[in-house]
Amino acid sequence: MILYVVVVIAGGKKLLSRKQIIFFSCYQNKLHIRSCFQKSLNAYLMQNRICSLFNIKYPIIQGGMVWCSGWKLASAVSEAGGLGLLGAGSMHPETLKEHIQKCKRATDKPFGVNVPLSYPQIDELMDLIIAEKVKIVFTSAGNPKLWTKKLQNEGIKVVHVVSSSYFASKCEDAGVDAIVCEGFEAGGHNGREETTTLCLIPTVRKTTSLPLIAAGGIGSGSSMMAAFCLGAEGVQIGTRFALTKESSASDAFKNYCFNLKEGDTKLLLKKVMPTRLARNHFSEQVEEKESQGASESELRAFLGRGRAKKGIFEGDLIEGELEIGQITAQINRMQSAQEVINEIIVEYNEILQQVKAEKGL
Amino acid sequence: MILYVVVVIAGGKKLLSRKQIIFFSCYQNKLHIRSCFQKSLNAYLMQNRICSLFNIKYPIIQGGMVWCSGWKLASAVSEAGGLGLLGAGSMHPETLKEHIQKCKRATDKPFGVNVPLSYPQIDELMDLIIAEKVKIVFTSAGNPKLWTKKLQNEGIKVVHVVSSSYFASKCEDAGVDAIVCEGFEAGGHNGREETTTLCLIPTVRKTTSLPLIAAGGIGSGSSMMAAFCLGAEGVQIGTRFALTKESSASDAFKNYCFNLKEGDTKLLLKKVMPTRLARNHFSEQVEEKESQGASESELRAFLGRGRAKKGIFEGDLIEGELEIGQITAQINRMQSAQEVINEIIVEYNEILQQVKAEKGL
Repeated sequence: MILYVVVVIAGGKKLLSRKQIIFFSCYQNKLHIRSCFQKSLNAYLMQNRICSLFNIKYPIIQGGMVWCSGWKLASAVSEAGGLGLLGAGSMHPETLKEHIQKCKRATDKPFGVNVPLSYPQIDELMDLIIAEKVKIVFTSAGNPKLWTKKLQNEGIKVVHVVSSSYFASKCEDAGVDAIVCEGFEAGGHNGREETTTLCLIPTVRKTTSLPLIAAGGIGSGSSMMAAFCLGAEGVQIGTRFALTKESSASDAFKNYCFNLKEGDTKLLLKKVMPTRLARNHFSEQVEEKESQGASESELRAFLGRGRAKKGIFEGDLIEGELEIGQITAQINRMQSAQEVINEIIVEYNEILQQVKAEKGL
Repeated sequence: MILYVVVVIAGGKKLLSRKQIIFFSCYQNKLHIRSCFQKSLNAYLMQNRICSLFNIKYPIIQGGMVWCSGWKLASAVSEAGGLGLLGAGSMHPETLKEHIQKCKRATDKPFGVNVPLSYPQIDELMDLIIAEKVKIVFTSAGNPKLWTKKLQNEGIKVVHVVSSSYFASKCEDAGVDAIVCEGFEAGGHNGREETTTLCLIPTVRKTTSLPLIAAGGIGSGSSMMAAFCLGAEGVQIGTRFALTKESSASDAFKNYCFNLKEGDTKLLLKKVMPTRLARNHFSEQVEEKESQGASESELRAFLGRGRAKKGIFEGDLIEGELEIGQITAQINRMQSAQEVINEIIVEYNEILQQVKAEKGL
């Protein structure tokens, strides 16, 4: 039996320093001192890579979403210490320009733009982003090689969204600054592999040493902690922010989503572009057609154009396409972006204290 | 600035007692002292409810699986400190009797039987389980009200598997001793709601105060920790144990699974009974038929009988039904059940140390 005398000087919130905690933790299992110290340190540095990369307080990214994330939402999230993203997917270049300028006026904190690489006037859009001196671009739905270097040469940080470790390695080849890995439970456009966030983070983490942001099914402090345990260093949250006061989605859409239960969203339109939709008249018609073997062209024709705008922005709950993620079942009231971030941070810290009290197995 | 002198007497593996850690943790945020203490304590007690309920060392359950989990696997898992389950779904009553008796001879530790309530000779099977004095029964694929009380009156602990919080509340009404909530990423038979484990655990946790075991996508120490952060107190692991030395699946099946990558499993046969299958000739034919709108009866006719036995047990990789979960992409070598459990525990404790070294947000 050994006697240790530990003198701890507490200057406020923190009783034990990080190094002291690492020392104590490591002592608990002599066999793992070395790896434990290294891994703890890695985890510590990794968690902060996302904050350092974007110069933000919390490693929380608000996903760029069609018809939800304009300047009001993006600036509110950035003001609250996260990273707000404008969703360029549903904006004409002129509209995006207006939102970038309004966002700059609303916050002096960092914000970014999400660009689906399938955007029709992509050159015009990227020129605008460069001209407006946007510092952070998240790209998705395309080949990361196409734009990464060009944007980085303008001093822009580039992050690409993937749904598999195969595409994560393509991102590393393309030289992106960070990766978002998004699982099956996410709302809207989704990967063909149907890999869930729980299964995706560990394989992507193994594939790349780049800063890793987890997305899909995350909207709380406990799910953020879970994502960190699996190897992520930041989280991208779509659905929860889509349903905040500052989201430009219609109140009809938000209120509809507050009443959705487990199983009320489904990944549909797989022959066109897999998309997670809330159950409504439109989604039921799609499901019926798919069940009967409708072809890609039949589905495209039925889908037509502007369905997402109709559903999310205009609030047509019957004929509109209601894109939302599985965690909508966990959200039942309107909050501000600031309240959402505060709640996530408080819950994260509570879970952290709970885990710290665990004695191990 | 306050000076604290902390005298810690370390008697071996543990440097700080749990109470001391709780004290330290709580001090870090005075505002949360009360809730923090209560929650930490709850977490501590909850984690142990699964171990107490079954009288096992680790809160790790080996899922009962058709053609994989006979007496060899179940007894090996129980010997290693988890809870082994015989999978009655693929056994005639006489075969189950033999496996129960062999399992008793192979281990004096607790083990159980998994019974799909859709089993044709269910009365005969349950009589046998009672007569053989099995102490733990996991039921699935049916109404938990049917058998729970009868089994409990014989001194049997009853756990029911669900894929939604709606069925979790039905389980609570039926008086089960614990609940398994299983997400979309799990292998074999699966829920119709397609809710992923990450999204399912928090809603089920909110629905019931019963001991909660998470399943689907779990096969490592980090995913076990992630499940605990989300509110689970134990984990049920299928796929990883299905691919161990002691699993009665054929080597051909195991080796095939070791080479599967992300996206190589898919939830198919949704019109019959949603089932997660590895990609092979059979699954591609099913997918093709479903894409063309095949009806339930056409799919049933094509499926025929004995496909799972053919694929998993007999190793027919062409025409057989290969049931396996998404985490097969993370497993690439044969290990014993003991090695699997050791690896999970070591990784769990490592992750725990890493989290303990985090300073909070």
